[in-house]
Amino acid sequence: MEKMTDEERRDFLQAGTRTAKLATVRVDGRPHVAPVWFVLDGDDLVFTTMATAVKGRNLRRNPRVMLSVDEEAPPFAFVLIEGVARVSEAEPKELLKWTTQIAARYMGEGQAASFGQRNAVPEELLVRVTPDKMTAIKGVSE
Amino acid sequence: MEKMTDEERRDFLQAGTRTAKLATVRVDGRPHVAPVWFVLDGDDLVFTTMATAVKGRNLRRNPRVMLSVDEEAPPFAFVLIEGVARVSEAEPKELLKWTTQIAARYMGEGQAASFGQRNAVPEELLVRVTPDKMTAIKGVSE
Repeated sequence: MEKMTDEERRDFLQAGTRTAKLATVRVDGRPHVAPVWFVLDGDDLVFTTMATAVKGRNLRRNPRVMLSVDEEAPPFAFVLIEGVARVSEAEPKELLKWTTQIAARYMGEGQAASFGQRNAVPEELLVRVTPDKMTAIKGVSE
Repeated sequence: MEKMTDEERRDFLQAGTRTAKLATVRVDGRPHVAPVWFVLDGDDLVFTTMATAVKGRNLRRNPRVMLSVDEEAPPFAFVLIEGVARVSEAEPKELLKWTTQIAARYMGEGQAASFGQRNAVPEELLVRVTPDKMTAIKGVSE
């Protein structure tokens, strides 16, 4: 097992339709985790979530998060990201820009516009995580 | 998007080399998440972790956990599991039984014995999570 280079880490995070698993803390102190669709903007992870979803409510109350993105086949690899989420009710145009970019990644360019529209609703929060710490390991089982 | 049946959920959790992303809470209240190799025993998730790893220390202090297992390609699917982890320093034979079974899943039968041995060390904790709540959704993007 060895560390990825910065370039390997960025390529890994952007490869295909890998999802990030977002960990937050609930109001009663229990952990919460759920998959999110994301894109990179520099080293920032950008994603959206409904304000009424558990993760949306958790993020607004306590923006400290950790995310895991992993390769689930030998020799296995993972990137772990810790940071503080900046959560905003974005302007409709700004929100649509990101939901469309995210939809292009996960659903393909052909469905990007329709899925982008579907997710650019008033209740949707725009979330940006600038990493405070990143751990990027490849060749876990080697 | 629709709920999986109980059988679909079990098949999904046991398919291939899917990893679970284990969320715990750190001593300072921040969330932690990392991938783990696991097997099912009935509906229980069984995995191991080093006692000195962040997730091992978190589990011993606060056994409330949540796990996410997802399919990262259209139409996307996920299973979320909440529960309380039972953490033990297992008897060497019991630990080896599980590390070998887990290695067989993730590294194949041919490497199960050697990887099982490699992970059946005295510092390794055996962890069992009996689900209190499960959410299993398929066809997320449909």
